[in-house]
Amino acid sequence: MSPAEKNIKLLLEYDGTDWHGWQVQQNARTVQGEVERALRVITRSDLRVSGASRTDAGVHARGQVCNFRTESRIPVERWPAALNSTLSPGVTVLSATEVPAEWHSRIHARGKTYSYRINTRLAPLAIDRRFAMHYPRVVDTKAMQTAATHLVGRHDFASFQAAGSAIKETVRTIHSVQIEAEGPERLLVTVSGNGFLYHMVRIIVGTLLLVGNGKLPASAMPHILAAGDRNQAGPTAPAHGLCLEQVHYD
Amino acid sequence: MSPAEKNIKLLLEYDGTDWHGWQVQQNARTVQGEVERALRVITRSDLRVSGASRTDAGVHARGQVCNFRTESRIPVERWPAALNSTLSPGVTVLSATEVPAEWHSRIHARGKTYSYRINTRLAPLAIDRRFAMHYPRVVDTKAMQTAATHLVGRHDFASFQAAGSAIKETVRTIHSVQIEAEGPERLLVTVSGNGFLYHMVRIIVGTLLLVGNGKLPASAMPHILAAGDRNQAGPTAPAHGLCLEQVHYD
Repeated sequence: MSPAEKNIKLLLEYDGTDWHGWQVQQNARTVQGEVERALRVITRSDLRVSGASRTDAGVHARGQVCNFRTESRIPVERWPAALNSTLSPGVTVLSATEVPAEWHSRIHARGKTYSYRINTRLAPLAIDRRFAMHYPRVVDTKAMQTAATHLVGRHDFASFQAAGSAIKETVRTIHSVQIEAEGPERLLVTVSGNGFLYHMVRIIVGTLLLVGNGKLPASAMPHILAAGDRNQAGPTAPAHGLCLEQVHYD
Repeated sequence: MSPAEKNIKLLLEYDGTDWHGWQVQQNARTVQGEVERALRVITRSDLRVSGASRTDAGVHARGQVCNFRTESRIPVERWPAALNSTLSPGVTVLSATEVPAEWHSRIHARGKTYSYRINTRLAPLAIDRRFAMHYPRVVDTKAMQTAATHLVGRHDFASFQAAGSAIKETVRTIHSVQIEAEGPERLLVTVSGNGFLYHMVRIIVGTLLLVGNGKLPASAMPHILAAGDRNQAGPTAPAHGLCLEQVHYD
């Protein structure tokens, strides 16, 4: 890093509906690609942005964090307005801060909090359809909370990782899983942990819903964890219910 | 109405973003047109739907009510699933009930409740952008609530009607105006009344925001009402913050 270079951290919100996820891909609109395009417009140079989480297609974020290095002399407090003036609707920079030269949004993340919204009414969703899973069944939230308690702590989450993933180190620590009613037919599941495997939150939600719907006892959770087998857990809940709420740093 | 005819009341939810409002228009996608299209698919006949409120383009509804008459022998409890199977995403029938032959969704409405969402943060909206007005200014909600109190009761709301409206009888009764914080930067304004003039809720919100932002004292409200002049009230808040929450019947 040259002495003139600054390391800038951005806090981002996005509606994942119209994007093919975070990570740059050829021939697909991605949020990372969109932020890099906006940086190119502002700085007239090709900057690479590093994100804390590679959110999948359709997944939303209220607190994605990324960083980039630049020699631009734009004052740090001007970055949000400058980028927001060119970013597409649905992607917003909430704040910008200068961070130490070696700081990296993913490597220095100590944990993340995700939310997952579920609507259990019978009728198809209209207003909520981009931001909540539709699960038109009776759900016992107490049983779900009991099941969730078994996940809290340091465990091998191999059963809760997408099949075929190359990641071999599958021990993670979940700090909390909270299940709240938001009105009579909406559920909000909030999961915090030190790190997450591929599809982990969505498989956790899919499994908790089996418990909520009486298809699996809450007491099955320790066995599912112990099995280390993706087939023992429930289905992967759809992407559009998921939102990256916060990335935690020291 | 022939003896075989039934009068069916529907409760509807819709995301107004992609629709040119409720009322049927030539060459424009409207919610009424969409419901009538779905009825044509199901019944193979041209039925006319009457709505309680002619919501504008971009306005949402969680509780629009409409009714139609049909000789179809579909049991009333089957109508929601039948219509939802063909309605476009973003328009949903929440329930159907059979009502007396003469019942009419608009004529028999005793009042309505609308909500209006505002987000006061600096950054452009992403996740909320279709459902909240962006008003990036400091807002004094107590002053807004004081101002709103002046609107409650039976008043001539001519100052709060879109200019050029043909409606001459402009006396309405507002039952309540509530202003609530939804988190640190979101405001929810809820207005109930026996009836509303064209753009009335949106002009009320635009005027309350002038008070909230210190550009108008709360004590100006009685004078604005007394003036009977659209120019005395504030600007019309944008359509997409508005949602028809409920239509009230005896």
